[in-house]
Amino acid sequence: MQILKTIRIIRQMMSLTREQGKTIGLVPTMGALHEGHLSLIAKAKNECDVVVVSIFVNPTQFGAGEDFDRYPRDFEKDRLLLERSEVDYLFYPSTEEIYPVGEMIEFKLPSDLLDWGCAKSRPGHFEGVVRVCAKLFNIITPHKVYFGQKDYQQAVIVKSLISDLDFGIEMKICPTVREVDGLAMSSRNRGLSREGREKAKMIYKALQARDSSILDGLDVEYWEERDGVLLIAVKIDGVRLIDNIVL
Amino acid sequence: MQILKTIRIIRQMMSLTREQGKTIGLVPTMGALHEGHLSLIAKAKNECDVVVVSIFVNPTQFGAGEDFDRYPRDFEKDRLLLERSEVDYLFYPSTEEIYPVGEMIEFKLPSDLLDWGCAKSRPGHFEGVVRVCAKLFNIITPHKVYFGQKDYQQAVIVKSLISDLDFGIEMKICPTVREVDGLAMSSRNRGLSREGREKAKMIYKALQARDSSILDGLDVEYWEERDGVLLIAVKIDGVRLIDNIVL
Repeated sequence: MQILKTIRIIRQMMSLTREQGKTIGLVPTMGALHEGHLSLIAKAKNECDVVVVSIFVNPTQFGAGEDFDRYPRDFEKDRLLLERSEVDYLFYPSTEEIYPVGEMIEFKLPSDLLDWGCAKSRPGHFEGVVRVCAKLFNIITPHKVYFGQKDYQQAVIVKSLISDLDFGIEMKICPTVREVDGLAMSSRNRGLSREGREKAKMIYKALQARDSSILDGLDVEYWEERDGVLLIAVKIDGVRLIDNIVL
Repeated sequence: MQILKTIRIIRQMMSLTREQGKTIGLVPTMGALHEGHLSLIAKAKNECDVVVVSIFVNPTQFGAGEDFDRYPRDFEKDRLLLERSEVDYLFYPSTEEIYPVGEMIEFKLPSDLLDWGCAKSRPGHFEGVVRVCAKLFNIITPHKVYFGQKDYQQAVIVKSLISDLDFGIEMKICPTVREVDGLAMSSRNRGLSREGREKAKMIYKALQARDSSILDGLDVEYWEERDGVLLIAVKIDGVRLIDNIVL
């Protein structure tokens, strides 16, 4: 696996890859990889000639007071997992590489993408997601990109980005990978105490039962249905967890 | 010259072109072509293996009450000029092809791109320009794009788009082509009366003399300097003309 840190170099490699007629699959991540990420990578390996994983904890998708500083980072473990998954390229840029100083062109999302789910309590979050995705798509020029169903609203919005701006990229949304007790895999699960981890398993139970009362006593941020998907966000131990289930 | 009207087909052709290792030059236009456009095309022919010209009168860059409906259109003449210039592909999409119905992701420009020049009197104009350019760049995937110096602020903003979103496209800004009396070539010049055309030649004279008093009696929208460029917009016969000169 080649680890590339600059836009210039990875662009060159991707340009060569495309000229060779090979297909490129991109799995954008913020690192702290878990089985969910690995399932995306396995699917990409299966469908594409060359697989690129990006690790970038994107500051523009964190609001003030959110967990940007506390977001888990474990590069050495991530690197080993990616080597083992036979990833071809790891794009691992610095913040300055992606966001040089100065004002920049950003995105404005339409209300039907923002008037539900996480957008209501995380103003600016999806604008930041779209911004970093647009940049990664332009840098890597993937044929296919892989996202998890767990971040459902993110998947809907990135799909819009691809279609509204004609990126010509195929988007693959892959099933949520769960712990044995049903908790959706997430890098943020690492932040839970033993007691919090025990409570967290109730999230999926409530979704399965379509019964939010199972979560009585927990800090439920939203429990709502959208286009046939039941969505939830809960805060446990100060960690914000999301999940969803297709009805 | 092949005339292609759908995103799907031109994407296929561009993908093949890239796989053959050929470079693509794009000249985006709104049609009603003149010598200014032809100079961009000649430069693109000189520098790229394959030249694509787009003709699309982009509704999102016209404000309410602006001249979208009156903007000159002359497809047959344009087609002949492009054939004669040995353009390889003409991308000539319908409005529905570029903007299917529904809310869409748009752009938000930073204030340092908007607090001067045309942006002040044309709210939303450059957001529309950026939007259509992003789409065209994603559809055509050019190596190089060609814009005229006449639309200086547009050139500055498209340059930002390319750099802020890492499009990896080389931008070429080409000198303004002028009539014998100095008037900058523009599709909108066709809308001038004989008297208006006579007045219009004073615009460049004023710029050359750095003396706005030459335009006394005309409807000057702005006369301002920005980063060593003297910029002007004037309305004559209800036609809005712009020009600039490097100091």
